[in-house]
Amino acid sequence: MNALKRIDQLKKAVFTEGGFDGYLIFNNANLLYFLGFPGTSALLIPADGENTTYVYGVNYEQAKAEGRDFKVQLVKSDENLIAKIARQAKDCGIKKLSVDALSVESWRALTKEFPSRKAVEVCSNVVQALRMIKDPREIEFMRKAGELTSEGMKIAVEAVKPGAKEYEVAAEIEYAMRKRGAGPTAFESIVASGECSAFPHGGCSGREIREGDLVVIDIGATCNYYCSDMTRTFVAGKSSEKQKRIYGIVKAAQENAFKSIKAGVPIPDVDAAARKVIETAGYGDFFVHRLGHGVGLEVHEPPTLSQTNKDLLAAGNVVTDEPGIYIAGYGGVRIEDTVLVQKNGAEKLTRGSYSLGDK
Amino acid sequence: MNALKRIDQLKKAVFTEGGFDGYLIFNNANLLYFLGFPGTSALLIPADGENTTYVYGVNYEQAKAEGRDFKVQLVKSDENLIAKIARQAKDCGIKKLSVDALSVESWRALTKEFPSRKAVEVCSNVVQALRMIKDPREIEFMRKAGELTSEGMKIAVEAVKPGAKEYEVAAEIEYAMRKRGAGPTAFESIVASGECSAFPHGGCSGREIREGDLVVIDIGATCNYYCSDMTRTFVAGKSSEKQKRIYGIVKAAQENAFKSIKAGVPIPDVDAAARKVIETAGYGDFFVHRLGHGVGLEVHEPPTLSQTNKDLLAAGNVVTDEPGIYIAGYGGVRIEDTVLVQKNGAEKLTRGSYSLGDK
Repeated sequence: MNALKRIDQLKKAVFTEGGFDGYLIFNNANLLYFLGFPGTSALLIPADGENTTYVYGVNYEQAKAEGRDFKVQLVKSDENLIAKIARQAKDCGIKKLSVDALSVESWRALTKEFPSRKAVEVCSNVVQALRMIKDPREIEFMRKAGELTSEGMKIAVEAVKPGAKEYEVAAEIEYAMRKRGAGPTAFESIVASGECSAFPHGGCSGREIREGDLVVIDIGATCNYYCSDMTRTFVAGKSSEKQKRIYGIVKAAQENAFKSIKAGVPIPDVDAAARKVIETAGYGDFFVHRLGHGVGLEVHEPPTLSQTNKDLLAAGNVVTDEPGIYIAGYGGVRIEDTVLVQKNGAEKLTRGSYSLGDK
Repeated sequence: MNALKRIDQLKKAVFTEGGFDGYLIFNNANLLYFLGFPGTSALLIPADGENTTYVYGVNYEQAKAEGRDFKVQLVKSDENLIAKIARQAKDCGIKKLSVDALSVESWRALTKEFPSRKAVEVCSNVVQALRMIKDPREIEFMRKAGELTSEGMKIAVEAVKPGAKEYEVAAEIEYAMRKRGAGPTAFESIVASGECSAFPHGGCSGREIREGDLVVIDIGATCNYYCSDMTRTFVAGKSSEKQKRIYGIVKAAQENAFKSIKAGVPIPDVDAAARKVIETAGYGDFFVHRLGHGVGLEVHEPPTLSQTNKDLLAAGNVVTDEPGIYIAGYGGVRIEDTVLVQKNGAEKLTRGSYSLGDK
């Protein structure tokens, strides 16, 4: 979908249905969604007038080269961005402005330029709603990001061994993804071994992996700014019966949730499909997070897959399916794939490297 | 400096001098600054009462293990974080709360819990002021991050050659830094070749580097969450007289600015020390950004080094010195080091790999 088609969708939601006559975007991922290139500071979409993006000198030439569908406005270093936008909004006759995200300071500066504070309203949901449904081009990028991530995880199978440091494993994985054309990682790689594997966001330290350690590896490549997210859990050396049992429960939970994913299913049912497997096995208290989250231009974005989000899944959602069991002082197991929701089912965008990795 | 000493400094500034009786932190880098570990959602520092950090289940066990100096409060997935904090603030008798950063929505939710909207004020400067002066332990981490970055740049000297893809060069550099123990990169590596080198934030694409291309490489390793930032410009193959001339001007500008850096110097003078070299050479219009920025837990943080920031440099500031000349349609040159400001001069934390790299 091209930039202008997305803006038409936004205008329909915000102007025709919402009663506003201007929309202002500050959030970086939202800017990227509409513009297709990074480095701009704001985008003003008036009901009447030119769509204008605001760019400081450092990124101005690049924006001019890439922003063909938009008016590109230079912001000088001694100019006040908010005041500049407010003037443009006035010139376009905007009476009621909706904004995607706003700090208190920016809100004060912006409302000062309007007759009433009520003329400015924050409304992030409308762009979130658009971004939640991926179009074919976005899906293509996310499929590629998933392939690159899966290639990185194949390296982990080899790199996880007693004596290796956590960051050395991360180095090999990230190198493999990057060499194949991945963009920067979607988030800070997690290689969490031993007791640290019990921390869901256990980081990646200089700790040396030991024989028998559980090792949780959570990685994500990007392709054209689109993220991927994948976790596998390995054992360095021979796995114990307890490790195998816990792994088996998490694997069954992940599969059960995956089978439940399709358009129209209530999100709490998907979370429950994983949670009930873990609860039945007696580990309910050790699954300390929601089942998953949306993925796209941000690695964590709507929809959240939890008991509290009562929405239905929709075709084009891309979400993670990532149950885990975390036992403080012992270790943890998580298995995660990035999944595309389809009309009659789901497609895993990350794949393979399942196994406790007995080696 | 330990966490509690930093909090004492904050209390002195906000309570004793500022007249508040509570400070609330949401910004991630600020949280990291005071707590020393990531993954928390907020930190409430009351004049009377326990310093409390708020953590969702996913990071709770890790925070309990690492947050020995703080009360660690679990936030359940169905709880409202802002309301929970407001209740705690009331229990501590806080009448006038200062906050480091706040969205409009959070500000509305928070002020609802206080008798007057005026009881809550946003004040980010106080933590910024503390973070701008690095203590010996922070300097140690930043020195290490600088060494790792300089090691990465040595690889670039070899990796930049006709036929190599931009992302392949990035892969080699990032791998070299990571293998030596670096944390995640401080920012998305820039490897911008040919005409793209004229874009200061030119990214890193699949473009194949060609004979005679200018190649701007801007990279940064992290050490213990502290960032580094370094740029060198190479030529793939034999450099032209024009490339050499432009490179020489940027190098002279960077050196001239470096020589001017010491505690007590007005920041505009440092920016001017570089700018006047480039202006005198006739390229003033092509140096399209400020001279530099502060570096620390964030790669871009105060103080900004520009004509508009009239502050004086202080011992313990860590800043970049990065003049550049960017000619649209031709190419660009930037040279950047991360520099520690000292009482009587300055120390480069990134080093070496200067040269047009004729090869």
